[in-house]
Order: sequence, then structure tokens, then C-alpha cells
Amino acid sequence: MRITVNRHAHFNAAHRLYCNDWDDATNENVFGKCSNPHFHGHNYELIVGITGEIDPKTGYLIDLKIVKDLIKSEVEDVLDHKNLNLEVEEFKNVNPTVENIAVFIYNKMKPVLGAKYDLTITLYETPRNFVVYKGE
Amino acid sequence: MRITVNRHAHFNAAHRLYCNDWDDATNENVFGKCSNPHFHGHNYELIVGITGEIDPKTGYLIDLKIVKDLIKSEVEDVLDHKNLNLEVEEFKNVNPTVENIAVFIYNKMKPVLGAKYDLTITLYETPRNFVVYKGE
Amino acid sequence: MRITVNRHAHFNAAHRLYCNDWDDATNENVFGKCSNPHFHGHNYELIVGITGEIDPKTGYLIDLKIVKDLIKSEVEDVLDHKNLNLEVEEFKNVNPTVENIAVFIYNKMKPVLGAKYDLTITLYETPRNFVVYKGE
Amino acid sequence: MRITVNRHAHFNAAHRLYCNDWDDATNENVFGKCSNPHFHGHNYELIVGITGEIDPKTGYLIDLKIVKDLIKSEVEDVLDHKNLNLEVEEFKNVNPTVENIAVFIYNKMKPVLGAKYDLTITLYETPRNFVVYKGE
Amino acid sequence: MRITVNRHAHFNAAHRLYCNDWDDATNENVFGKCSNPHFHGHNYELIVGITGEIDPKTGYLIDLKIVKDLIKSEVEDVLDHKNLNLEVEEFKNVNPTVENIAVFIYNKMKPVLGAKYDLTITLYETPRNFVVYKGE
Amino acid sequence: MRITVNRHAHFNAAHRLYCNDWDDATNENVFGKCSNPHFHGHNYELIVGITGEIDPKTGYLIDLKIVKDLIKSEVEDVLDHKNLNLEVEEFKNVNPTVENIAVFIYNKMKPVLGAKYDLTITLYETPRNFVVYKGE
Repeated sequence: MRITVNRHAHFNAAHRLYCNDWDDATNENVFGKCSNPHFHGHNYELIVGITGEIDPKTGYLIDLKIVKDLIKSEVEDVLDHKNLNLEVEEFKNVNPTVENIAVFIYNKMKPVLGAKYDLTITLYETPRNFVVYKGE
Repeated sequence: MRITVNRHAHFNAAHRLYCNDWDDATNENVFGKCSNPHFHGHNYELIVGITGEIDPKTGYLIDLKIVKDLIKSEVEDVLDHKNLNLEVEEFKNVNPTVENIAVFIYNKMKPVLGAKYDLTITLYETPRNFVVYKGE
Repeated sequence: MRITVNRHAHFNAAHRLYCNDWDDATNENVFGKCSNPHFHGHNYELIVGITGEIDPKTGYLIDLKIVKDLIKSEVEDVLDHKNLNLEVEEFKNVNPTVENIAVFIYNKMKPVLGAKYDLTITLYETPRNFVVYKGE
Repeated sequence: MRITVNRHAHFNAAHRLYCNDWDDATNENVFGKCSNPHFHGHNYELIVGITGEIDPKTGYLIDLKIVKDLIKSEVEDVLDHKNLNLEVEEFKNVNPTVENIAVFIYNKMKPVLGAKYDLTITLYETPRNFVVYKGE
Repeated sequence: MRITVNRHAHFNAAHRLYCNDWDDATNENVFGKCSNPHFHGHNYELIVGITGEIDPKTGYLIDLKIVKDLIKSEVEDVLDHKNLNLEVEEFKNVNPTVENIAVFIYNKMKPVLGAKYDLTITLYETPRNFVVYKGE
Repeated sequence: MRITVNRHAHFNAAHRLYCNDWDDATNENVFGKCSNPHFHGHNYELIVGITGEIDPKTGYLIDLKIVKDLIKSEVEDVLDHKNLNLEVEEFKNVNPTVENIAVFIYNKMKPVLGAKYDLTITLYETPRNFVVYKGE
């Protein structure tokens, strides 16, 4: 019996959209006010979806305390109240779009979860825009 | 890296559920108060999901300004503040159920997006009822 | 101990904004696409707030079953799945703006509740626009 | 044209997490305060997703009145305002985790819906934790 | 400059509605299935609103860390994952209606906050029913 | 007949909490990670509430197009996608707490609305924290 268990989490961060090998004019042309050199920011709302078999003994897919701790160590401690461009190694050379942040979270969490579980990252940049990434 | 980017939109419309080749009594019998000949209406909440590859340069799947403009020209300009049965060509002979409206939106947007992207239409008729259509 | 108990409800309706003693051009000029003669519609989300003293015996302000029945008889049976302009006596001469619909609901419910309770009507015309009316 | 129609519903219940063949200390060790022998409880929010072909005549996948009645008879009448451990036969020997409750709801509804429809059960135990089960 | 700062919190609990000096039949007659002797439960969603003057130095009304700690010690530690009737002294003789729980939370928090602040307790028993209590 | 009409809006911004006449250590001590010198950010969700008399002719309190334009010119054009500390004159010397931002929005909008209307600013810094300011 395969099931998906989902857990909400959230973090706040500043960022700007910016490609290193483009000049400022090109960046502003492509990314508009999202490229403001003084940064802007978001409340990122995260849904971590974990898929696998229900443990017949406990009735759990996975203990949510484990998921909570994992989200804390892999996501919140790294991204919360940070400037993504300046303070997160990954985004010094990678544009911190919501797409790339979702991939980053997936790549941080998947190895720790292991092959036993599939992982789906749903990430809201605003209440009106969100992405879904399954590592495919 | 395949990802889905989702964008919320919304429109308001009047409609009634009605099959042209049934008489009023049969329509009322099947559709109940949803068949009221004076119409009723809804705030339709729309989530447009677009799936494809992240552009390694920009970190975007697609520029959301393009999506926003597409939703405006293909959906909002056609359906917003309209009477679906009387003012939208498609629904003169097709019953404007939420299922059929979702298929209509898919069929309007998919050709413009092209083969590069998969499209998922999620359409809420009320906060309690919604459909998901992927063109399958 | 004065407390306010709130109950959510909802109804769907068609309407157009229209002043009887203005011609169509003036109506369209003032109300824009909300004045579409073919009507449009909304999911109205209603919060009925009732304020008074907690009954020391039951710990209730008022039995919510009474509130539910009252909302059904005074609001849902009258407005749900209706064309407000054509089918609701009140709105044949009164413009069915969200302001006027909230006042109408207040005026229907207040006499039945009596002097023992204060009443607050919160009415969402869309998830983005809402009014609050307290009969003041 | 395959589409998924979704309907929200809800029920309230008390439960405790508990494995019959473990002693109290082991249960508390594994399930923490969720194993409180005096029980705690939740507002379960349910989304029933039904997938199939749109009826070309009515434009419906399925009449939502049928879905509403089915949710009432198979889910609400069985689980609403109940103590899951003490009053629901299934959970006398099965731990009433949100995973197992979702499987239970699936197994109750699927045979009644028949082979014509696929079924997806989304069940929120809290606004922050939810599961998705598709009978796979 | 008086302002209100609001903080969301939540707790889960089991309860039954029950008046000690009524017999079971009367309780069931008045409270229906909410009086089930085996208990049912809810996710209570709490909004703590604190009103006062903005500190001109910090720009804070009050440090939200203080509010968070206060909610933990006065509300969550006392009510979360508890059976209100059996495990909370207050509700051994007082019916744990949402009205009475809101008053209880107010009475716990107000003395700690002191005369400097006004307090408003908004408590959702379900997403559809909630109360507001201001100690008036 | 006095009524309140509410309109949702939103803007994204970067900020840090910081008192000019404190050193960095004191700022970090008081504001914690909210004082990160590299900034963090939020999606601010705004509800503008306007109270006054319903116009008996139109049934409007105020035309929402006027409100929308006012929010755009006074709030969005000034704060959206900005670094509040660096790019908004007001917050060069005033700490951009959610309390102070709400007061700022009130002070920008109230003179334009005039004495005819009361104004209530509800501002969410995150989905879990919000303030209400009425200019009292």
C-alpha cells in the first residue's frame, strides 16, 4: 500500500533574480523588478511529500518527527531569514528562481531519505505562484 | 529536470446547466436548481499548471509574464463577467459544467503553449468542488 | 461575558449591477462589465457573527443548529442559485451590490434573532473583496 | 476525455495512536503524546477525487449529489463525532493513523464506485499534515 | 499609536459537551452527537490578538517571541493533545464548549500580559465555526 | 447605513529589523535573525478596509476601482519588490517592523481618502503574524 504523506513548512528569504554572466541591463530586461539589485523577498511555503509503503506495524509511512527534523536541518537552517544570493553557496552561481530553489531542496533531502521513499517538493513563492518537483 | 510551474487566476461568470435536446422538465430533473432558467453564477478559481524542462540559463520553466498574458487573452477576456450559455460560442451547444469549462480552457491554451509543455487545468467552481484536466 | 460566535455559510447567485432610473449607457459607464445585461455571478461566502452573553448552564451563546436553520430559511432558500435582479423581490429596485446584499441579509436575520443578540454580517463577493455590516 | 472531479467533506473524531500488542510504555515511546490514553482529536478534512470519462450528454463525470450521498453513508455516518479506537470496528485492531484512515475510506468507497472510476483520497489530519492514497 | 498584533497557534484535543447536573438523556437531547460519551475531537486554531502602543524605539508592540512562549506555557502545554473533560481541571465542572475554552484561554493569558495590553481571543473549533472573546 | 468594504492586495519586499542608534550586537540581541545585515523578505498580504455610508444611488460605499488605483499608487508602487530599509525614505530612520509598515500605509492612504471614510489597515507579514491599525 503506497501512500504519500505531506508536511507543511515555511521559511522567509531575500533574493534577486540574476544571471552572473549577463550585465545588469540584460538582467533587468529579462527579470524586471525581480532583478532589483537591492533585493526583495518572499515567505516561501513548502510542502514536503514523501511516498512509500505504510509500515504494517505502526500504521505510519514515516514518523513525522523525523520529517520535521529533516526539514529543519536541510531546509530551514540553510534558507530561513537568509539572503539566498549572498548567503547560500548554491545560489552564488545559480539563479534563485522558485524552480531552482525547489530542485535545491529536493537534492538536499532525497539522499537523506534514501531509495525507500519518493520525494515531491511543492514550493509556493507567493500564494499565487508555486512549483512541483519530483526529481524526474 | 522536469518541473511544473503553477499560476493562479480567476474569473466570475453566470451559467445554467442545460442540455439543448432535453425539455425543461428533464433538465430540471437532472440538474436541479443548477438548471434555473434565470441563471446563477460562480467565482471560478483557476490554477494553470505548466510542465517542462527548466531553462538552465534563466532558471525559469517559462516566464510567468507570458503565462499571465496567455491566461488573460485565452481565458479572462473570453469568460470573465460573462454569461457562459449566452455569450460564449462554445457553450451554446455544450453544457457549461465545470468539467466542460476546464476542457475548454485546456483546448484554448494548449495549442498556444505548443508541444514543449504539458498543461494541467485545475478549476474550482466553488471552494468545495474542483476538477483537474490534463488533456488525456 | 459577551462573546461573538461565527458561522460560515455560502450561496451562489447571478446578478448585474444596475440602477433602474439610469439608461444602459450610464449603467455601463458607472459599473463597467459588472453591468453586463446577460448577468455574471459569484460564490458568496457568508460569516454570520452573533454577539451576546454565554448561557452559564450550557456554555453556549446560542445553539448553532438554530443559527444553521436560520441561515437556511432567511438566506439560502432566498438567494442560493438565484438571479438576484430577477428573482429576489428586494433587488428589483435596489442594486444588488455586495453592500446591499449584506444589509438585506442583516435585515432578514436581525428581527428573528431579537434584541438579545447583536449581529454582524461579513459577506465575501470574491475571495478578494468583502464587506462587514453591523446594522449601525 | 479523462478528468478528476473533487469534492470536499469533513468529519471530527477522537483517537489515540496505539498498537495492541505493545505495552503502554512502548506505545508512548513510539507515538509520544499522540498515544495519550485519554485520547485527543482532529477535524479531518477530506477531498474525494474521482477520475473517469466525462459523459458527453450531461457534461458530468458523475453527479455530485451521488458523491455527496456516498460520502455521507460510507464516511460521515461511520466516522463523524466518533471515537475511532472504541467505536469503529476497523480500528479496534488497526492503529488509526491518518494513513490507515485514508486507506479505510478508500476501501469503503471504491467498491461502491465500481471499476468505471479511479479514486483518490486526500485526508488532512491537521491543516499542516495530510496524506494522499490512490489504492496502488 | 494603538495597534493590534495577532499570532496564530493551534492545538488538538478531545472533548464531549456535557453538563454535570444533567443526566445522559438530557445531555444527548441538548448537545446531540457532540455529547458522545466516548468523546470526539478538534484541531483548534487560535489567533491571539494583543492591542497596545507601539514602542517608538523598537517599532514592536511586543516581541512575538514573548507571545509565542506565553502561548506555549499558558495554552499549548495545558490543552494540546489532551482530553479536555478528563485532563483539564477547569473543564471537570465547566462544559468545554468553544465559548468556554476561549474564555479560559483569555483568563490564563490576560494576567500575564498585564494592564498594558488588551487581549482578543479568536478560536476556531472547525474551519466553519469560531468565536471571538475580548474579556468584556 | 455604515459599512466596511475590504479589498485584498499584496506586495513583496526585503527588509531587516534594525535601530540606527544601536550597534549591530544590540540589534542582533533584540531582533535575532530578523536583523540579518544581508536582509530577508516577505510576501506582505494587505487588507484595506474602508468604512462609511453606502451611496443610496449606486449601492456602493466607494467604487473599488478607485480603491485599487489608490493601493497601486500609494502602496504597491512604493513598496513592491523593494528593499524597505534602503529604498523607502520613511524606513531609512524608522525600523520596518510590520507595525510600522501598517502605520506607514495608513498615513499614505488616509489623507487621499479624506474625512468621509474611516480606514483600517490589516497587514500580514507571514500567514501566521498580522497587525490591524485604525489610526487611533
